[in-house]
Amino acid sequence: MAPDRTPAKAHGNAFGNAFGKVFIATSVDGFIARPDGSLDWLPAGGDGGEDYGYAAFMRTVDGIVMGRSTYESVLGFDGWPFEKPVVVMSRTLGASDVPVHLRGKLRITSAQPAQLVAELRAEGWSSAYIDGGAVIRAFLAAGEVGEMTITRVPVLIGAGRPLFGDIGCDLRLTCLASQAYPSGMVSTRYRVEAGGRVMVRNGGGDE
Amino acid sequence: MAPDRTPAKAHGNAFGNAFGKVFIATSVDGFIARPDGSLDWLPAGGDGGEDYGYAAFMRTVDGIVMGRSTYESVLGFDGWPFEKPVVVMSRTLGASDVPVHLRGKLRITSAQPAQLVAELRAEGWSSAYIDGGAVIRAFLAAGEVGEMTITRVPVLIGAGRPLFGDIGCDLRLTCLASQAYPSGMVSTRYRVEAGGRVMVRNGGGDE
Repeated sequence: MAPDRTPAKAHGNAFGNAFGKVFIATSVDGFIARPDGSLDWLPAGGDGGEDYGYAAFMRTVDGIVMGRSTYESVLGFDGWPFEKPVVVMSRTLGASDVPVHLRGKLRITSAQPAQLVAELRAEGWSSAYIDGGAVIRAFLAAGEVGEMTITRVPVLIGAGRPLFGDIGCDLRLTCLASQAYPSGMVSTRYRVEAGGRVMVRNGGGDE
Repeated sequence: MAPDRTPAKAHGNAFGNAFGKVFIATSVDGFIARPDGSLDWLPAGGDGGEDYGYAAFMRTVDGIVMGRSTYESVLGFDGWPFEKPVVVMSRTLGASDVPVHLRGKLRITSAQPAQLVAELRAEGWSSAYIDGGAVIRAFLAAGEVGEMTITRVPVLIGAGRPLFGDIGCDLRLTCLASQAYPSGMVSTRYRVEAGGRVMVRNGGGDE
């Protein structure tokens, strides 16, 4: 252990039953977008029909939780790509910002992760796809990510929006599976370990 | 392509014959050490005798090139761990800083990557193990890394010394092999593609 990091008791929200599942692509240097949000470094659509496990993953979640930035990217797609319900975390958008064609498919919330998880569990959700860098980091910090599938795109882009940030502690992971695809993508599924959580002594944590 | 990045001709030093090979472990969030240099997050020694391909890798290189910081870490080990010749890149150390017991095994140079590669090639080296974050980034920027083996340790440490930096261009990689070990480490070997090099339009590159 480094002197400034001490073991802590397991997190209040047991990771073994954590609500969130992450499924995301990053460059080998850990970025999910260029500084301007561009995704031009991702393989062009199609890729021989390979979905890198996305459809199978989507069958394991009850819905999707994303941030405003991800939501606005998705709005630019041809058509709404999700069949399952979507929750957008935003402090600035409100219910009246939901486009007419998305009513019933999408809601906007200003709740923080723990409160949102409690609400969604009360509605019968047992897990959600957590998407977007800021939302992923907030759920990791709240102890509400149980599993992460990270697909590494074989490129170094040098600068951009990082997937991870400093949440004030180490998080130990267990590799559940790893697969290399003919395209050069390498997809690894990790469990986030509650028992391996190590908090920083001098605050910054969420206990 | 993002508007600020344009394709460029292949690098002067053909990547296909690039001199440097990287073999390094990083956390899943891309750090090679904590902010203070600590490596306590790496698995404890032994690990069932698994070397993650290190011995086989070392047979493919003629020697090791490292920075001062890596060198000083290695000096703290029990005994000198390298049988092949070592070159330390440093602007502050000189030949008189080589300890007596390492004379003949180690030399110190103030040369930049391209010059050093020319010198070592002239001595008959065809490739070198490039070790240490700053030296790896300098060799990547100089177009002198042909291959990288990155072993992901299953932990998020949140902050530290990153492996990669911004060298002013994209570098496309080709995945040559990927292996998941029972310990949870995932080791992926990439070729660095010369043809995929994309320079930033407004300088910062090395052409």
